[in-house]
Amino acid sequence: MTDVIEREIKVKLNVDPQSLMEKLLQDGYVYVGKETQEDIYLNGDTRDFRKTDEALRIRLVNDKIELTYKGPKMGSRSKSREEITVSLDDKDSMIRILEKLGYREAQSVRKTRHVLKKGEFSVCIDIVEGLGNFVEIEGIDIDEEKLLDFFKEFKSRFGISGEVITKSYLELKVEKLASSSN
Amino acid sequence: MTDVIEREIKVKLNVDPQSLMEKLLQDGYVYVGKETQEDIYLNGDTRDFRKTDEALRIRLVNDKIELTYKGPKMGSRSKSREEITVSLDDKDSMIRILEKLGYREAQSVRKTRHVLKKGEFSVCIDIVEGLGNFVEIEGIDIDEEKLLDFFKEFKSRFGISGEVITKSYLELKVEKLASSSN
Repeated sequence: MTDVIEREIKVKLNVDPQSLMEKLLQDGYVYVGKETQEDIYLNGDTRDFRKTDEALRIRLVNDKIELTYKGPKMGSRSKSREEITVSLDDKDSMIRILEKLGYREAQSVRKTRHVLKKGEFSVCIDIVEGLGNFVEIEGIDIDEEKLLDFFKEFKSRFGISGEVITKSYLELKVEKLASSSN
Repeated sequence: MTDVIEREIKVKLNVDPQSLMEKLLQDGYVYVGKETQEDIYLNGDTRDFRKTDEALRIRLVNDKIELTYKGPKMGSRSKSREEITVSLDDKDSMIRILEKLGYREAQSVRKTRHVLKKGEFSVCIDIVEGLGNFVEIEGIDIDEEKLLDFFKEFKSRFGISGEVITKSYLELKVEKLASSSN
């Protein structure tokens, strides 16, 4: 669909997601919608995306199916990556074609995402299966400085104290699986 | 979309495409439609599909965009391959994702295809840019013997004398380019 620089900042929620949502709505945020997302991550047979810091993902969101490639992180303080996405009609066939090209299902992450908007920023409240609750602030093609300022102001206004998490849900999940198998 | 065994037989036309089409219609064939197809073939940076006898193709047909993987030929007398296809919304993004995965545009083939049907067989009259006119008979999930019988009868009924071509238009184009550069 589009080729954009997506910048995002994420933090683990130390407040209740429902009450945060209510506060945002009172503050003039617009509720965009709720999505049930299943992300299937693939990895290469001869190319380890954990090492190259790339990602290849099939996302099922409501009735849509998307294939996304994410390039290595570019920013240092927020998370910026090149993203290329196409919409398609058949998850299983796409997975089978990618298998033929040497890419295989590695992990999946399921979450419920509530999306709210204010100006150029999207605020996503994510309830992630097996990982907990997070808030992710996203901006498309915006300045890193601007996103960081918005984030700082956001945290103080809504009483969120967590540290910035630069890891993806996939990385957090892999980490958790590794530590629980020790 | 689908995962099927497509069998096809192709022959170079020694008769005029338009007059063949008229004869087919008189013979009870149904005209399905005309398609303008552009096929973009990709090849791997470290994996040569000409050697593995696979194909990765993006087809633009009228308003649709499809990605197809074709496995190696399985039949000996007709052309049978595993095919996996997905429909998608954006050719350029798909090409860019595949480039990131190590696959690059190699060749393209443009043709006008008239499709006619009789029973379980599709007859495609193809006017291929730079290669000439062909007729291709296709059957999905049918017996090889049955296709060969149909083809024999078809040739004799409509006065077509060419030999079976097992090469794809892509292979014919590559061959022609190679010979013209000598």
